[in-house]
Amino acid sequence: MLEEMGKAARAASYKLAELSTEQKNQVLLSIADRLEAESADILSANEQDLADARQNGMSEALLDRLTLNPQRLKGIADDVRQVCRLADPVGQLIDGGQLDSGLRIERRRVPLGVVGVIYEARPNVTVDVASLCLKTGNAAILRGGKETYRTNAATVRVIQNALTQHGLPAGAVQAIENPDRELVNQLLKLDRYVDMLIPRGGAGLHKLCRENSTIPVITGGIGVCHLYLDETMETEAALEVIVNAKKQRPSACNSLETLLIHRGQADNFIPAFLQRMAQEKIALHADENVLALLQNGAVEVVAVQAENYDDEWLSNDLNVKLVADIDEAIAHIREHGTQHSDGILTRSIGNANRFVNQVDSSAVYVNASTRFTDGGQFGLGAEVAVSTQKLHARGPMGLEALTTYKWIGWGDDTLRR
Amino acid sequence: MLEEMGKAARAASYKLAELSTEQKNQVLLSIADRLEAESADILSANEQDLADARQNGMSEALLDRLTLNPQRLKGIADDVRQVCRLADPVGQLIDGGQLDSGLRIERRRVPLGVVGVIYEARPNVTVDVASLCLKTGNAAILRGGKETYRTNAATVRVIQNALTQHGLPAGAVQAIENPDRELVNQLLKLDRYVDMLIPRGGAGLHKLCRENSTIPVITGGIGVCHLYLDETMETEAALEVIVNAKKQRPSACNSLETLLIHRGQADNFIPAFLQRMAQEKIALHADENVLALLQNGAVEVVAVQAENYDDEWLSNDLNVKLVADIDEAIAHIREHGTQHSDGILTRSIGNANRFVNQVDSSAVYVNASTRFTDGGQFGLGAEVAVSTQKLHARGPMGLEALTTYKWIGWGDDTLRR
Repeated sequence: MLEEMGKAARAASYKLAELSTEQKNQVLLSIADRLEAESADILSANEQDLADARQNGMSEALLDRLTLNPQRLKGIADDVRQVCRLADPVGQLIDGGQLDSGLRIERRRVPLGVVGVIYEARPNVTVDVASLCLKTGNAAILRGGKETYRTNAATVRVIQNALTQHGLPAGAVQAIENPDRELVNQLLKLDRYVDMLIPRGGAGLHKLCRENSTIPVITGGIGVCHLYLDETMETEAALEVIVNAKKQRPSACNSLETLLIHRGQADNFIPAFLQRMAQEKIALHADENVLALLQNGAVEVVAVQAENYDDEWLSNDLNVKLVADIDEAIAHIREHGTQHSDGILTRSIGNANRFVNQVDSSAVYVNASTRFTDGGQFGLGAEVAVSTQKLHARGPMGLEALTTYKWIGWGDDTLRR
Repeated sequence: MLEEMGKAARAASYKLAELSTEQKNQVLLSIADRLEAESADILSANEQDLADARQNGMSEALLDRLTLNPQRLKGIADDVRQVCRLADPVGQLIDGGQLDSGLRIERRRVPLGVVGVIYEARPNVTVDVASLCLKTGNAAILRGGKETYRTNAATVRVIQNALTQHGLPAGAVQAIENPDRELVNQLLKLDRYVDMLIPRGGAGLHKLCRENSTIPVITGGIGVCHLYLDETMETEAALEVIVNAKKQRPSACNSLETLLIHRGQADNFIPAFLQRMAQEKIALHADENVLALLQNGAVEVVAVQAENYDDEWLSNDLNVKLVADIDEAIAHIREHGTQHSDGILTRSIGNANRFVNQVDSSAVYVNASTRFTDGGQFGLGAEVAVSTQKLHARGPMGLEALTTYKWIGWGDDTLRR
């Protein structure tokens, strides 16, 4: 069955690659309109999914994440209309020129072809990914969370209605409707038809894909992010950035997990820091050096466990550690970081440059919150995923990351000598 | 053991990333000088490898490929000096700007980190890969062909002598000296330390890597390349390009394997074509439509077998097939091609554009030999590999393909709102 889906996606990708930006935008507008006009099927499928999930004991918070209603569907449709307004990278001339041989070459940006996306939970991702793939002329094979497989299938049928309305094959956007996990394993081996695989979910999903896929995978999504407070930084300004990085949205992968403090700052900084953290209800996990500085019992602080340094809290928890100098801070980040987002708080140009040059992360900040690592914040217009690998795309991935290029050689019966 | 090599390579990569272009060039010049000055160890290791290979019945042609002598070593050293003269992509500002939030971002080109290369046969690849990696600030873990493992190990020791002379860790360039294949499997799982894996060899090696590596792999190297002769093309000009694409170097992956001829050209083209192919000693494998056109026994032509369309000849053999039109030609290329290099021979602008837009290959040519797909020919200065996948790099890979980028955010105690 997946073989057939792959073939259909590949065939559709050839049609999509020939569409003009205007044609692609027309399809997207039809999808947006139909999501509102044909919402009944999607909403009733969603009700069934939710009923099952409730029966299986899913928490109210998670149930809320999976819930669609007319208002949320309208929001999703508006997001599709927003994708129409983005610049289309396909067709762009990257570079080129005349070679000594007389051959004129150009490097032209083209769609990737077929993109596979495996995601968990939220059903809006179905429309999000489909619209970004269509905008860039790619076919998509989607495998959403099994909790919302009926919702995803109904949503993809609405998208396919819009595709056929415009004379395009339904194979351009397909969902794996069967929630059987074995089909994920089959998808991972579909390298003959799928050009890129994007897992959007937790560490387990990324590991599964990295270890089993024969398709090139974009991995990422895990952020153990650090801020290093150096010896030159003022306390008040530092506290604002730390609180923003930790609390602006603790569940995000770019939120702060570990604060590294220059030892020379301890006496000055720690008392104000403890007070502010207590105010902000941020629970501290402190190393022994920080614990030794605490007034007895004034603030509740627990001892950090070694494994805390390697995991995301995704909550109002923060690790705190004293370091001797910038070298120790950088060494800690190299050992425990996930190459996502790390920053320095400093007034020293020398320290700033050193940190920026030596910390090998997708995004490195000087005097800014780690929360900026985001396609929208970076002005990319959309975010396909956040990559923490180094091939193809790094950090927030915009539409360009859904393209590749081809070399075109224009000759005049030109021979290689 | 590989775990230790990975750790050493990672640590070395941090040192390499901090070097200036000038410092990297100094190391490369020392490597070149030492390859000539310290050739004795390399040449004696090579003699042992050759003695073993001869005893194992290796052919004289292959033995010659593995042979090093002072003259060849000088050529290899000169290639390293040539790498010094290439522009260094590291540090380049790709793009950036001021965001609405006030954050100033830049995207800076940086080394990948650690590159793993698995290659077969020719020992010059050891120096070639090491110098390209060092030029771009990457550490390298090399696993060369088992027939020359002593030569490779001796070569890497000379490179390491140059590294330590400049105060750099030997871990920057390491060879897996043990020819045990099990170590290749271990290397494929070293994703914690290796950022990119480049297999340089046949289809089997690429398949092994794609199926077993947890490290992102660049696959390529296999070229079933096509030329399509349309109804508007003149016979004489076409024959020149066809002969060049087939014969200029038949063993190369960008040489021609299948010629597709528009049916309307058959009567005009085939007689002159058969005569020229006989002159050029190119053995034809023809489909039944071509065979039907042959004068009885005038030229020796065999019937093409279905599987011939999917394999490289790498010899003076050529498949020939009649097609009804450009659509059938494009469909044939989509089914049997390897997305390497394919071209059209035409005088029609419409056909040229259609072919260029619809053929999804790394390099697509109009009225030119497929033999141009090459880093040197494309003006990239060097060729790390030829990629036929779509992620990261496509077609000939120059130094830029050995880099990634990091996002740097310069703030003024900037918070996300």
